[in-house]
Amino acid sequence: MFFASDNGGPVPQAVLDTLAEANQGHTFSYGADPMMDEVRQRIRDLFEAPDAAVYLVATGTSANALALATLVDPFDTVFCAPVAHIEEDECNAPEFFTGGAKLTLVPGSDRMTPEALTKSIESQGNRGVHGPQRGAVSITQVTEMGNVYTLAELKALCDVAKSYDLPVHLDGARFANAAVALGCTPAEMSWKLGVDVVVFGGTKNGLMGAEAVVFFDPAKAWEFELRRKRAGHLFSKHRYLSAQMAAYLRDDLWISLAKSANAKAARLCDGITRRGDVQILNDVTANMIFFTAPRALHQILQAAGAKYGIMGGPLGEGPSNALLRGRLVCDWSLPDAEIDRFVSLVIDA
Amino acid sequence: MFFASDNGGPVPQAVLDTLAEANQGHTFSYGADPMMDEVRQRIRDLFEAPDAAVYLVATGTSANALALATLVDPFDTVFCAPVAHIEEDECNAPEFFTGGAKLTLVPGSDRMTPEALTKSIESQGNRGVHGPQRGAVSITQVTEMGNVYTLAELKALCDVAKSYDLPVHLDGARFANAAVALGCTPAEMSWKLGVDVVVFGGTKNGLMGAEAVVFFDPAKAWEFELRRKRAGHLFSKHRYLSAQMAAYLRDDLWISLAKSANAKAARLCDGITRRGDVQILNDVTANMIFFTAPRALHQILQAAGAKYGIMGGPLGEGPSNALLRGRLVCDWSLPDAEIDRFVSLVIDA
Amino acid sequence: MFFASDNGGPVPQAVLDTLAEANQGHTFSYGADPMMDEVRQRIRDLFEAPDAAVYLVATGTSANALALATLVDPFDTVFCAPVAHIEEDECNAPEFFTGGAKLTLVPGSDRMTPEALTKSIESQGNRGVHGPQRGAVSITQVTEMGNVYTLAELKALCDVAKSYDLPVHLDGARFANAAVALGCTPAEMSWKLGVDVVVFGGTKNGLMGAEAVVFFDPAKAWEFELRRKRAGHLFSKHRYLSAQMAAYLRDDLWISLAKSANAKAARLCDGITRRGDVQILNDVTANMIFFTAPRALHQILQAAGAKYGIMGGPLGEGPSNALLRGRLVCDWSLPDAEIDRFVSLVIDA
Amino acid sequence: MFFASDNGGPVPQAVLDTLAEANQGHTFSYGADPMMDEVRQRIRDLFEAPDAAVYLVATGTSANALALATLVDPFDTVFCAPVAHIEEDECNAPEFFTGGAKLTLVPGSDRMTPEALTKSIESQGNRGVHGPQRGAVSITQVTEMGNVYTLAELKALCDVAKSYDLPVHLDGARFANAAVALGCTPAEMSWKLGVDVVVFGGTKNGLMGAEAVVFFDPAKAWEFELRRKRAGHLFSKHRYLSAQMAAYLRDDLWISLAKSANAKAARLCDGITRRGDVQILNDVTANMIFFTAPRALHQILQAAGAKYGIMGGPLGEGPSNALLRGRLVCDWSLPDAEIDRFVSLVIDA
Repeated sequence: MFFASDNGGPVPQAVLDTLAEANQGHTFSYGADPMMDEVRQRIRDLFEAPDAAVYLVATGTSANALALATLVDPFDTVFCAPVAHIEEDECNAPEFFTGGAKLTLVPGSDRMTPEALTKSIESQGNRGVHGPQRGAVSITQVTEMGNVYTLAELKALCDVAKSYDLPVHLDGARFANAAVALGCTPAEMSWKLGVDVVVFGGTKNGLMGAEAVVFFDPAKAWEFELRRKRAGHLFSKHRYLSAQMAAYLRDDLWISLAKSANAKAARLCDGITRRGDVQILNDVTANMIFFTAPRALHQILQAAGAKYGIMGGPLGEGPSNALLRGRLVCDWSLPDAEIDRFVSLVIDA
Repeated sequence: MFFASDNGGPVPQAVLDTLAEANQGHTFSYGADPMMDEVRQRIRDLFEAPDAAVYLVATGTSANALALATLVDPFDTVFCAPVAHIEEDECNAPEFFTGGAKLTLVPGSDRMTPEALTKSIESQGNRGVHGPQRGAVSITQVTEMGNVYTLAELKALCDVAKSYDLPVHLDGARFANAAVALGCTPAEMSWKLGVDVVVFGGTKNGLMGAEAVVFFDPAKAWEFELRRKRAGHLFSKHRYLSAQMAAYLRDDLWISLAKSANAKAARLCDGITRRGDVQILNDVTANMIFFTAPRALHQILQAAGAKYGIMGGPLGEGPSNALLRGRLVCDWSLPDAEIDRFVSLVIDA
Repeated sequence: MFFASDNGGPVPQAVLDTLAEANQGHTFSYGADPMMDEVRQRIRDLFEAPDAAVYLVATGTSANALALATLVDPFDTVFCAPVAHIEEDECNAPEFFTGGAKLTLVPGSDRMTPEALTKSIESQGNRGVHGPQRGAVSITQVTEMGNVYTLAELKALCDVAKSYDLPVHLDGARFANAAVALGCTPAEMSWKLGVDVVVFGGTKNGLMGAEAVVFFDPAKAWEFELRRKRAGHLFSKHRYLSAQMAAYLRDDLWISLAKSANAKAARLCDGITRRGDVQILNDVTANMIFFTAPRALHQILQAAGAKYGIMGGPLGEGPSNALLRGRLVCDWSLPDAEIDRFVSLVIDA
Repeated sequence: MFFASDNGGPVPQAVLDTLAEANQGHTFSYGADPMMDEVRQRIRDLFEAPDAAVYLVATGTSANALALATLVDPFDTVFCAPVAHIEEDECNAPEFFTGGAKLTLVPGSDRMTPEALTKSIESQGNRGVHGPQRGAVSITQVTEMGNVYTLAELKALCDVAKSYDLPVHLDGARFANAAVALGCTPAEMSWKLGVDVVVFGGTKNGLMGAEAVVFFDPAKAWEFELRRKRAGHLFSKHRYLSAQMAAYLRDDLWISLAKSANAKAARLCDGITRRGDVQILNDVTANMIFFTAPRALHQILQAAGAKYGIMGGPLGEGPSNALLRGRLVCDWSLPDAEIDRFVSLVIDA
């Protein structure tokens, strides 16, 4: 019953197989391996973007921070949600990689609104040389609270950015889960809306550690390459990144994995909401569930070995009927039996 | 006939097998996987350093740059050889990770001498607040020119560093090749000499991408962890780094691989030196050969498909008897048949 | 009628005289001038801090950013008010000087409350290596909105910081105006409350460009000196900074200047509030006035040549009775006649 | 007898007078003062560069580092002499301001040769993404060893830079001394040769602390302004920088001061070389003298109160006839009587 994160599960056999396939003889390093040619072409096809510059790195933090550093100057600010991964979970990586740019937190929750974004941008461009300059807009899809922006919502945010000539970065650590939830194509969820750079995440969706950074305008491709190398994120034995991503793209594996993860979250959500005092806090269309439940229920679940995050108070102390928040994340590999066991615990408690 | 680098070959089956072994069920992320516990213990045992702080990253550049950033302040300078990887091949990563520290190049060749190191250190500490402060000494073993410092030579450099209270960083991208060449233990080639932080490289010696950074004094361990995360080098699915390093350490695989690579270089060296106009430029005890040969010979070799670096002039133009330098690097997996084919080409040309 | 800033007026004759006094013969540079000895001693006496490390720089931005960079690590965050100068008016200088630390904005207005500060600190320390670490608390006195924290309010904030072992930085660009407003000593408004580093500003209070950075614990003094030099803020002809600050400290000039500036603000405030539709937005005890007035009044004032900032809408367009905010800042040198002329315009409009 | 530096003397009365002139009434801050308009126009006229972007900062280190940061990217390297101020005397300021760019030291002495510069540039551009990229060439005139490049020598260096499309930065901390020594115009010693950015120094030539940074192509002007602000080098009460520079430019004061300083060095040089065992090490056409003399002579001079730098060994210990190097720097204000007294001491010893 591991719902702590979608980075806790194994990778599918196809990934291991493709690693073994890549592991033949000698090849050139640093991205000049033939499997990277395949990956580049597949991603360009997938995104309907024949000129896109495509790069692989091994972590989401580096993918985001390198992309942002390529988009903005050190005297700029990046507009994002207050709960964005780049703000809360990257230990100042964006500030580091950009050479000291700032993040401006758009007031509200995980889903930025065009109005709030506009107001934030307006708040930053009116001090001349004194304040930070407007640099870029960063959107996370699926959001950190498990919600999926609609295409119209994304478009509205991109439109705001474009009206200020700001580039848009899409943190797509869970890109696949969102695309599957929306039933849209990668192009429809990126450049067709105005996204300039997308992080097409693989790690949370079944890879060992591989994220594609896709620049739809290749003008800054060389700068990205230099920044990637300078940050120690250019792999010498690059073929093992390529192989992961190749496996991901072949036979639409990325879609199958995301569908599986989303379906498991739906099954879990359906199950636990049968209990009245469990309240779901997000729109569960992707693979994350945020919910409230009485402390006593959390205690039972955790005691039974369920792994997931609890927020809003200590598990051990306090009134047993006090509501604490929980965060359940499903990866593609979760056995249905474990989901059902968790649900049974909830219902029977 | 791939001698371009030791990052061009495949990984041994044991690595794939251990990845598969690690790929079971759910586990905690970010280094809390059980296989990392195994790795930590094995490295502490291997280095006879029960308190050492042990971390894994995926690239040599990040290992070096993070280690240096943990040792020095932004207003410091790091003393190293002019051909050090941190100077020539990391696109300013040390400057980036340290927040702007400088490298001071110790005059001479790839092997620093205690005299030259002393002189360099002396040249930097005499300007008070105006010049950079003395920060650390960085030594590369095996050197970039394929030479192996003796333990006495390393000790002498460490002694110089210690006499100025400077910490010592050992870039051990080819640590295994050196240890095997010297027939010494890891402890003998590191903290027993005065090394404070060692990069125990795995990538060039048969792993996909895994380097251990070992701090013999754990006082700065937490700072390293924060810097690693901030740089995007903390892997969420850390078990796949652990698995590589576990495979490397089990059954002394790291030694077998290095012995194989070194033996192949010896075989290659023995072969090509049977020809009189091939001159070897380094002490070939590890896995690299630097040599000079007439342009005509290089042309024949390259035309036959041999992959290796050529320096000192263009391959295509110029007198056919002009001497150009070549760089041959052997990895563990090179088929002897290809070595012999290369040698035959040299001898028969 | 120049109320745009307290950096718009001239310096008192005493400053010019002391510059001339310092301008005799040759002296050592970079802070080794005898007048710096005088300044150091005077500041130590003034702050009742015989061990304090005292440094001069020429701008408030550098004073703040260097002080913070000395206090925090690049993976830390600094807690401050959303309108703090370090957030809004330094073009990312804190992020630059700290090597990429973050600012966490404590929700609320210009005066942080202990409750809000506590909540902000709590929100940042619970993600282990993933989030920024708690670095320091930065307090601005006088605030950017012209308010003066009471000593009790400052103490409460310092107590919160201390309860988390966080150092406290006091941005005292208008330190003198606040001390005069509160009728307290420098020591009472700094280390006696728990402040670790204070920027004792001179520029806004009558100097050409000189700020003292005072570390009550000299442990980090040398690091500050190196950071100051590295940032180009160590003056070779340092005596001209010393002279400014010496003039400021002799005969309590700093107090006289602040008293004058505060008195002028009081006179101005008294005058304009005689008109009913002028609303004062801050506690005018120092030298700044924030107010609302109808657009028509602002138009008259500006047309008459008054210089001050207007916020909340365009001056030229919109209903004449719409309320726009204005910001009036008084420096020591403002002629009373101009204040009275401004008041007359307000009253007679 | 103060020959320790040209930053040890007073400023001419004209500077104080112009400060007093600027010290009238209220004016706008941050460079919007009318005297800056005068300065901008005068510098454009002086350099025959009507479109030049002109900025003032207070220190040479900030002028150089900001200029370089505007020219190069963090993954670049700057080519300079091994004794360049930016390498030896700025405590890593260039690395800091550029976000981690590197300096590549062109082998040789203080005067780079076109051949050595070419070789250095060639050594850096051949590693693709792995090595630093070629960023800019930085030339110091007068050099740190007191030599003055001829215009032809400068041109040859600029030509090399241009052949690689590299911008040229001229560190002109002693620009005036060089121009006077060469008898050329500012334009002839800058953009007419290919210099892109010049630091037109005032501090070492009689100002309190003011350097003009002149971009002949204004394309990067706005970036410079942002970097200046972000580094805390934009003065609020900018008029006091403007006033210094205005005084410097009016009535060719900068020329008079440089002529005076150079003449004093010539007088000093003529005097001391009358003694046979004093050996001059540089071409004394500007205001610096490097020489060797027996330890005994240095001891007598220092005992008599002469202030100047001694290099090559301790003053107090060692053979009295051992030759130690000395560095004498003359500023405009040195009394001839003190020069003559020094000379007498040398001759009579």
